[in-house]
Amino acid sequence: MRKVGVAILGLGVVGGGTYKILTEHREMYKKAYNADISVEAVLELRKERALALGVEENRIASSIAEICSNPDVDIVVEVMGGVEPAKTFVLAALNAGKSVVTSNKELFCKYSYELERVARHNRVGLYYEATCVGGVPVIRALLDNLQGNVITSLVGIVNGTTNYILSKMTNSGADYEEALKEAQRLGYAEANPTADVEGYDATYKLSILSSLAFHTKIPYTKIYREGITAITPADISYGKQLGYCLKLLAIGKNTDRGIEVRVHPTFIRTSHPLAAVNDSYNAVYITGDSVEDVMLYGRGAPRRPPPPD
Amino acid sequence: MRKVGVAILGLGVVGGGTYKILTEHREMYKKAYNADISVEAVLELRKERALALGVEENRIASSIAEICSNPDVDIVVEVMGGVEPAKTFVLAALNAGKSVVTSNKELFCKYSYELERVARHNRVGLYYEATCVGGVPVIRALLDNLQGNVITSLVGIVNGTTNYILSKMTNSGADYEEALKEAQRLGYAEANPTADVEGYDATYKLSILSSLAFHTKIPYTKIYREGITAITPADISYGKQLGYCLKLLAIGKNTDRGIEVRVHPTFIRTSHPLAAVNDSYNAVYITGDSVEDVMLYGRGAPRRPPPPD
Repeated sequence: MRKVGVAILGLGVVGGGTYKILTEHREMYKKAYNADISVEAVLELRKERALALGVEENRIASSIAEICSNPDVDIVVEVMGGVEPAKTFVLAALNAGKSVVTSNKELFCKYSYELERVARHNRVGLYYEATCVGGVPVIRALLDNLQGNVITSLVGIVNGTTNYILSKMTNSGADYEEALKEAQRLGYAEANPTADVEGYDATYKLSILSSLAFHTKIPYTKIYREGITAITPADISYGKQLGYCLKLLAIGKNTDRGIEVRVHPTFIRTSHPLAAVNDSYNAVYITGDSVEDVMLYGRGAPRRPPPPD
Repeated sequence: MRKVGVAILGLGVVGGGTYKILTEHREMYKKAYNADISVEAVLELRKERALALGVEENRIASSIAEICSNPDVDIVVEVMGGVEPAKTFVLAALNAGKSVVTSNKELFCKYSYELERVARHNRVGLYYEATCVGGVPVIRALLDNLQGNVITSLVGIVNGTTNYILSKMTNSGADYEEALKEAQRLGYAEANPTADVEGYDATYKLSILSSLAFHTKIPYTKIYREGITAITPADISYGKQLGYCLKLLAIGKNTDRGIEVRVHPTFIRTSHPLAAVNDSYNAVYITGDSVEDVMLYGRGAPRRPPPPD
């Protein structure tokens, strides 16, 4: 049986969850993949967090160099978020001949050119399925399965925090500030919610998805962006009366006049499948010339643990 | 550039559509796959249908033997439907060293053991993505992308005809007979609708999907089956008043007490994402231990052309 050694950079909610899944499913993966996948190392400054998850002390690395020089590590999983030091670490891993799996949409969106070039140069893999819509295979669908299509449109609810807030406002009549507080209390929003509520996170994801769909690099800086902070309960209830609901949509269209990409609050008919995507769920609705309409739906990202009371 | 020759068995709605997509997208596929995919032969008794689609006369084969002995054919696409002669033709193609792509759920459901054994023996591919939910990559998701999960549940709306009829009854208050007639008029139902309305088609698809999800062959004969012919407008309107809608669901569950598989009309909450799957659309809602809930949604199958007036 093939042995596959994994190192995890960052044991936050995503990294901790990844560690648990890999260790708990190890026997199952042996059967499913004929491979023994073991976590050989983790990089996490909060050593007590690693120990609490059950990581053996001698597998807690103290530097990226230690992981890069570990011959038992084949794949580096980067789930730290943010550009630095994630970028330096990912480049080091690729240059050390490790394949990299990343969930870091900001990093991948901003530096995919460079990262992909370095991965190709070192003949290693670079995988980023987890940057968009959690474990739902939307990147794979765009890379492979739907490649027989000319994709004309891609419309997504790609940010769980804002979808939770808008769902809460819609269902309970809460105003924006109340709904945000509730989202923070439940761990769906961060203490500083700017990246989510102002739509930055959605532009990173739309950049990644529309680049794949339309076969050209679409920088996030070219995407029109408008967040949800100005939405009032009145906006939502007027829409409701007319049969519409309000969603923060990430929209990419490829028309004869060129490519159009934008993130903004949008009214959609309540009968549209995207209108049934509520709370922290995400979905991407893709239209191709052969397959017609396809929607991929699922949990965007795990809940952060709520802050201690 | 690699040359890939295709033969299409049957130029009905699916086969004709496949022919058009392959010929119209030929230049695009050269770029996308670095392969020149050309339709080298078709097998269709209604010769005038082939000519009307633009097939050159010398590419209209008169027997499966002619296709099997054609060295330019690499892949045989079987889109005839039904068990025979499709089974004989597919086995002949596999034994001639051709890879096979099939959309035939009845054939694949009933004979997958034998077909897969013959494909392995001849070291050729056997692909059946199109047996379930049209071009939506649900088979691929179950075969690969979601394999890191223990899948505990799979619930699908997998038959477009019955979903169209139930949607029509729900939206217009029509009774079953009226809705069926409308479905037949629009080409969503066949003149003899038994396979769809009695749930046979859904059991074939549930057999294929649940076998993949639960890693064991589940014969369609073991699936509890109940169709939609006894549904009345009263059933639907009582459900509506309580916040439910009625769908023909294909349900597979893997619990500690074993695997449970059934196809029958079911009330689901109108807030559930499957409730937004209307008309001839299909969807499969999968629950895995790591990914939580995922739904894949899309057009089940193309409309048949309406019968001539």
